[in-house]
Amino acid sequence: MIREITGFSNPLVKQVRQLREKKHRRLSRRFLAEGLRILTEAHEAGALPELLFFAGDHDAHPLVAALIEATQAAGGEVLRTTPDILSKLSGKDNPQTVVGVYPERFTPLDDIDRGVADIWIVAQALRDPGNLGTILRTGDAVGAGGLILIDDCVDPFSVESVRASMGALFTQTIVQARWEQFLPWLRAGAGQLIGTSLNTDNDYQAPRYESPAFLLVGNEAQGLPEPYEAECDLLVKMPMLGKADSLNAAVATAVMAYELLNQRRARG
Amino acid sequence: MIREITGFSNPLVKQVRQLREKKHRRLSRRFLAEGLRILTEAHEAGALPELLFFAGDHDAHPLVAALIEATQAAGGEVLRTTPDILSKLSGKDNPQTVVGVYPERFTPLDDIDRGVADIWIVAQALRDPGNLGTILRTGDAVGAGGLILIDDCVDPFSVESVRASMGALFTQTIVQARWEQFLPWLRAGAGQLIGTSLNTDNDYQAPRYESPAFLLVGNEAQGLPEPYEAECDLLVKMPMLGKADSLNAAVATAVMAYELLNQRRARG
Repeated sequence: MIREITGFSNPLVKQVRQLREKKHRRLSRRFLAEGLRILTEAHEAGALPELLFFAGDHDAHPLVAALIEATQAAGGEVLRTTPDILSKLSGKDNPQTVVGVYPERFTPLDDIDRGVADIWIVAQALRDPGNLGTILRTGDAVGAGGLILIDDCVDPFSVESVRASMGALFTQTIVQARWEQFLPWLRAGAGQLIGTSLNTDNDYQAPRYESPAFLLVGNEAQGLPEPYEAECDLLVKMPMLGKADSLNAAVATAVMAYELLNQRRARG
Repeated sequence: MIREITGFSNPLVKQVRQLREKKHRRLSRRFLAEGLRILTEAHEAGALPELLFFAGDHDAHPLVAALIEATQAAGGEVLRTTPDILSKLSGKDNPQTVVGVYPERFTPLDDIDRGVADIWIVAQALRDPGNLGTILRTGDAVGAGGLILIDDCVDPFSVESVRASMGALFTQTIVQARWEQFLPWLRAGAGQLIGTSLNTDNDYQAPRYESPAFLLVGNEAQGLPEPYEAECDLLVKMPMLGKADSLNAAVATAVMAYELLNQRRARG
């Protein structure tokens, strides 16, 4: 059954729109994903929305039809609405074809099996949702196990982060932890903690990295706090030939992550 | 002499605020840069604003005082204003300490000396200002000669791009060209055109790249048009181990650019 929603004042429209704000996401433990490409990636990763909004004809696009069918089969609710209401939900003038509501996907730190992957990305006090989403996307590409968010990072389930992740939000394990939790957990098992830092002359291509590698990325403006750097097994830096002294956080993470991957590929 | 501007209705305030819009930047061939860090980077790169706005005390911060002095010495005008007007200029609730107006920095294609650098980045129909600014920042880091924008790219002088570049906008040469101009120019001299593409199995670490390398990056959603790929000397791809089939455009550019740099470093 497909429910119709045509009124802006419908309480569900208001409720879903509120998921654009962090406090409502936290309260409801739900988040929004928008657009056919991302919802289809989510579906391929096995994630289906609890609520699926679409506008127009249910069989106008085969991917929309597939999403509707799969959502219903999984017990989710499908709602047909107007392009205007979809615009309101997504906060964009150019409405997406589909908007989905999903349950939050945090994994507890203790549930992680670090051995399933050679790379884990650990971000500390990351502020930019685009960077966070981009790091998830890179993590997917390099076969990372997931992203561990340390201290007060921007919400990975914000609309901007979900969009930048291009669906990797649904394939990467996402953990939130305090440094004081993370460090004992890390040291209770195998793993090399690698920080990128301006306070070292150690070239990032010099070490032979071990698996699992925990790649620690600091805040965009401040970098890693000094005590966090002190806990790293290795501090490395990328060569910087220009006037600037640092790379964008998502770029630095990707350059490091591909170095780890390339070393592993070279060892076969 | 420091002029005072305290009225929102001052025509200069309106004019400068309009530089947030592309059409006004194009008409006046001027752009805005905001924040002490970026204006100081610009200054270090030899670029000083024609107009410098600041709020508060002119010697409250030594970097502000240095900017004021250098701007005046270079014949620019310095304007003291209120935090509210600075907020209005920068379109942010949290006002920057300084806002500068600079002349556009496009370099004609024919003025480029390709031999000055081993890497040039060529972006085609790039849409995201954050990606463009981030690519400039990466270009600075890897010692690229500059960024050549092909077809209809987002404006490199938008406030978002300037911010993401973290000052690299002032150190990198920026060119705008049509593909039909660029290609004959490229082929009239030395240079290897390298495209990243999903339509190849050629691993990005397999080739031995030549200098100068022209790294061609396509549009975020579509990648490179097929005829553009056909003109490349090399098509390569990064390994993708996850579900996604592509990286963020700025990330892909950085991973490629560091591979070029690393090969050159390895050759010594």
